[in-house]
Amino acid sequence: MAITAWEQTAATKRQSVLNAIPEKWRIKGPIPTPTEQRDVTGAYIQQFLSPREIEITETDAVGITERTTTGRWTAVEVAEAFCHRAALAHQLVNCLHEIFFDAALETARVLDAHYTMTGQPLGPLHGLPVSLKDQFHVMGVETTMGYVGWINTFQGKTNDPRYLTHESELVKELRAAGAVLYCKTSVPMTLMSGETMNNIITYTHNPKNRLLSSGGSSGGEGALIALRGSPAGFGTDIGGSIRVPASFNGLYGIRPSVGRMPYEGAANSGDGQNTVLSVVGPLSSSASGLILLFKTVLGAKPWLGDPGVLEIPWREDIVEETRKLVQGKPEGLAFGIIYDDGQVRPQPPVERAMRIAAETIKSLGHKLIKWEPPSHQTAAAIANRAYNLDGGADVLQNFALSNETIHPSVVIDASGSPQKTAQEIAALNVEKREYQKQYLDYWNSTAQVTGTGRPVDAVICPVAPHAACIPTKYATIGYTAFINVLDYTSAVVPVTNADKSVDVVGQEGREYFGELDRKTEGEYDADVFDGAPTGIQLFGRRLQEEKILVLAEYLGEKIKKAST
Amino acid sequence: MAITAWEQTAATKRQSVLNAIPEKWRIKGPIPTPTEQRDVTGAYIQQFLSPREIEITETDAVGITERTTTGRWTAVEVAEAFCHRAALAHQLVNCLHEIFFDAALETARVLDAHYTMTGQPLGPLHGLPVSLKDQFHVMGVETTMGYVGWINTFQGKTNDPRYLTHESELVKELRAAGAVLYCKTSVPMTLMSGETMNNIITYTHNPKNRLLSSGGSSGGEGALIALRGSPAGFGTDIGGSIRVPASFNGLYGIRPSVGRMPYEGAANSGDGQNTVLSVVGPLSSSASGLILLFKTVLGAKPWLGDPGVLEIPWREDIVEETRKLVQGKPEGLAFGIIYDDGQVRPQPPVERAMRIAAETIKSLGHKLIKWEPPSHQTAAAIANRAYNLDGGADVLQNFALSNETIHPSVVIDASGSPQKTAQEIAALNVEKREYQKQYLDYWNSTAQVTGTGRPVDAVICPVAPHAACIPTKYATIGYTAFINVLDYTSAVVPVTNADKSVDVVGQEGREYFGELDRKTEGEYDADVFDGAPTGIQLFGRRLQEEKILVLAEYLGEKIKKAST
Repeated sequence: MAITAWEQTAATKRQSVLNAIPEKWRIKGPIPTPTEQRDVTGAYIQQFLSPREIEITETDAVGITERTTTGRWTAVEVAEAFCHRAALAHQLVNCLHEIFFDAALETARVLDAHYTMTGQPLGPLHGLPVSLKDQFHVMGVETTMGYVGWINTFQGKTNDPRYLTHESELVKELRAAGAVLYCKTSVPMTLMSGETMNNIITYTHNPKNRLLSSGGSSGGEGALIALRGSPAGFGTDIGGSIRVPASFNGLYGIRPSVGRMPYEGAANSGDGQNTVLSVVGPLSSSASGLILLFKTVLGAKPWLGDPGVLEIPWREDIVEETRKLVQGKPEGLAFGIIYDDGQVRPQPPVERAMRIAAETIKSLGHKLIKWEPPSHQTAAAIANRAYNLDGGADVLQNFALSNETIHPSVVIDASGSPQKTAQEIAALNVEKREYQKQYLDYWNSTAQVTGTGRPVDAVICPVAPHAACIPTKYATIGYTAFINVLDYTSAVVPVTNADKSVDVVGQEGREYFGELDRKTEGEYDADVFDGAPTGIQLFGRRLQEEKILVLAEYLGEKIKKAST
Repeated sequence: MAITAWEQTAATKRQSVLNAIPEKWRIKGPIPTPTEQRDVTGAYIQQFLSPREIEITETDAVGITERTTTGRWTAVEVAEAFCHRAALAHQLVNCLHEIFFDAALETARVLDAHYTMTGQPLGPLHGLPVSLKDQFHVMGVETTMGYVGWINTFQGKTNDPRYLTHESELVKELRAAGAVLYCKTSVPMTLMSGETMNNIITYTHNPKNRLLSSGGSSGGEGALIALRGSPAGFGTDIGGSIRVPASFNGLYGIRPSVGRMPYEGAANSGDGQNTVLSVVGPLSSSASGLILLFKTVLGAKPWLGDPGVLEIPWREDIVEETRKLVQGKPEGLAFGIIYDDGQVRPQPPVERAMRIAAETIKSLGHKLIKWEPPSHQTAAAIANRAYNLDGGADVLQNFALSNETIHPSVVIDASGSPQKTAQEIAALNVEKREYQKQYLDYWNSTAQVTGTGRPVDAVICPVAPHAACIPTKYATIGYTAFINVLDYTSAVVPVTNADKSVDVVGQEGREYFGELDRKTEGEYDADVFDGAPTGIQLFGRRLQEEKILVLAEYLGEKIKKAST
């Protein structure tokens, strides 16, 4: 069968990414199939690395900067170790869209020279490799965002002077803080999917279980960090796109409220849709890694470079206050908990993760109340309408650039439905605001039942009905999209991995919420899911990033301690 | 000629407002025509008041609360004095939509009882009368927002349970702070006008010069406060609607950035249009009055009642920092100045106000640089497109409720043009963001020329090309709408009044920017405008309310001192 033009273009691009991997870092011989070797993290990937490289890449972001900002590790040796490991990661799970190791090593050399000359780090991220979802523009590097039609263009525009020259605000701020940028990670075409697949990199598999998805849309970030090919990176989230890959890969991630992290100058899907906004946020192997990145970006005063960022600096007073609450002063914390969204009951590994989190909270002496908010399904419906306001016009235009085929996992309506009118959009905005108001009132009302005199401090809930997911079988955004509609702060805390010996569907029949519930339970296969990570969400009201980050760090540590 | 049904409904409502004025407060005999008595402030209105009433009503908001929160003045005597003066104001210039003096006096009695019992004020506004634009819902009181079709309904909906029972968040917060609510002020039909007129109250004239307009859309607030029928109140601003009446009435007013003051539960025009948002802000006869209201509302943590409010408390540290800059520590302030928008040159009184402000700044030793930003006309065009996204569908539906006629001063397109589609709206949102980014970059760039090491601290510019305006001759929103597009913070500082002896159009010909410029100059008549107030805008970046309020207070005091 003849290869089409877009297939050729995609194949060329795919090969060019592989070609950017130095010969010495290429995996010799065939890579085992997922059935032969599901889990390519840990010992599997370590076989290709030196002990020193393993030491460096398995140190978390804070540990790395402690060493690189004090001259104990050079930026160059850290950059080389991560470039090597990222190269391996990409060969194992297709997680990179762009590789620019040479530029990274040049940056690292400059940083080392700076340190040698001044005895001081350039900034708080001096020498820290930071990965970026392929929406961020980096000077000299292409951004395809998973569209074949964007290859050799600036966001689909040919002969645009910004091609290879433009840099996103976040990127500038990371550079100024001393970060080393070295790769951009894979995304699903359109960004609107809980999996990561496109016609350039094909599919990004889950490194803990390559039968499954790494999640989406920041799936490349999730997979790369899970393989420790990056200590921390930035994704975006409009319906779960940071939280899903964080959960599916056993990582921490945070979806902040709109206006805290700079989006300025980054590519996007459906740009200008203003009802439910995409936001930028970090993913990392540690909660402290999230805090480091979050605090550093705010330290750069991003509101001076991005008109969409709110002038709210990192609030150390909230950190202190939250730390006191954590220590039980004066009366400890109160959490809400919601096990299912009334539409799809989570599969056994996720249910177990929720129970682990609940038991941990109770064993620490904190309050746990049943969370009974305005329906999350209502919110998910609002989100879906917001995503589809233009009837798919934006994504269809981008597909039309190359005539590439559309993957079935894209959740946006690409059928070319009629666009919504101004008044229909306004009505949706009002509906959203009314939902937000109801939810806020409910939140406040819990002050009556927590026993702390305050409403709940945070709420825990699943991230998705499944631990990772079988390709094309991502069930629902019902567990994540309500956060985007509310514009609340939600962090993912890793909890456990699916275990076929304990995670089995109950023998007794149960009543199903509906067809999707029955289908999702039916799709659970203890064997297939075995080993897949799952986390939980920990969410707070709008703009509660400092509080939620501190609580995520606390709860994550306690859960880890409880399970070891 | 037979009176139509809507005319009858409007007349009945108009009469019911007048009927709510107690007999003892009605002006006996005919009120002089505007030609006979232009200015009804000061001595004119004082003739109807007792010396004690004059003393109370001519004390500013801070002065009043100093006395009412310490028991020196009772809430009842203050409420009675303001109710009386507001009743007079309405009879003179048609500035009220709703009068509820009985409820106000009942509130005041409760406040006095509270003080007597506890020896403490209920809150920081204990006993302060606060007026409200007729968009805010008050329990037991109707909201027509200038639509005949809203009479006897909740926002045009008949048999809605919220009719007469609903209360806006701001109103709840003001009550909790001890404010006394007693009247709601007039607005133009649709809210989209620089004048205030509708088929219920007819036209709100300027109390300093009744030949002219009180401005709009918060024109009732402007007129009432100018007549000292209120010490302070709340308006809204989507294109200048707080700033225009503040300037036209010699008052202070602030258009804060989106998300600082609660809009939740208030009526609006074109609700859900999300590109350029209307915001709530105070107007007052003093800058300290604005600060009092602003600080008090933030003290109520409005983000717990309104999902649209940002959790940014009143920032005393910024106040302190700004006060130091004001005192020249370390290097004084730097202001930008822009005399015209390149489309319409301001008429002589406004030009003189700008020169007074410039001279004051220079004489105080601060830097003044020429402001040359991205075109304000570009921004005004974006704003106009945002206002008209629905082709006038919202306002036409509201007009259709009663079939009332549309006043020519409505600036929205009510011709029923086609609605914009989702993708067109998204493109406009992107255009707006790009403009915001260009403006922010320009702002930052002034650090190179201010000599303070910082960009400008604030910028001054006209509010409109005219001091007040001749009915139906409001020239352009070019001086105000750019602020709404940028979402910047802008305060109005009163400067001077038109003076026919000095404010004359230059004899020498000049080049005109275009037809509107020529027309606007032609419409200036030194005799007609004589006595009309004019202020200037003082604006800062997004969310700079604390800084701009302190600077407005400072500059206002210095300008006042310079002119006396």
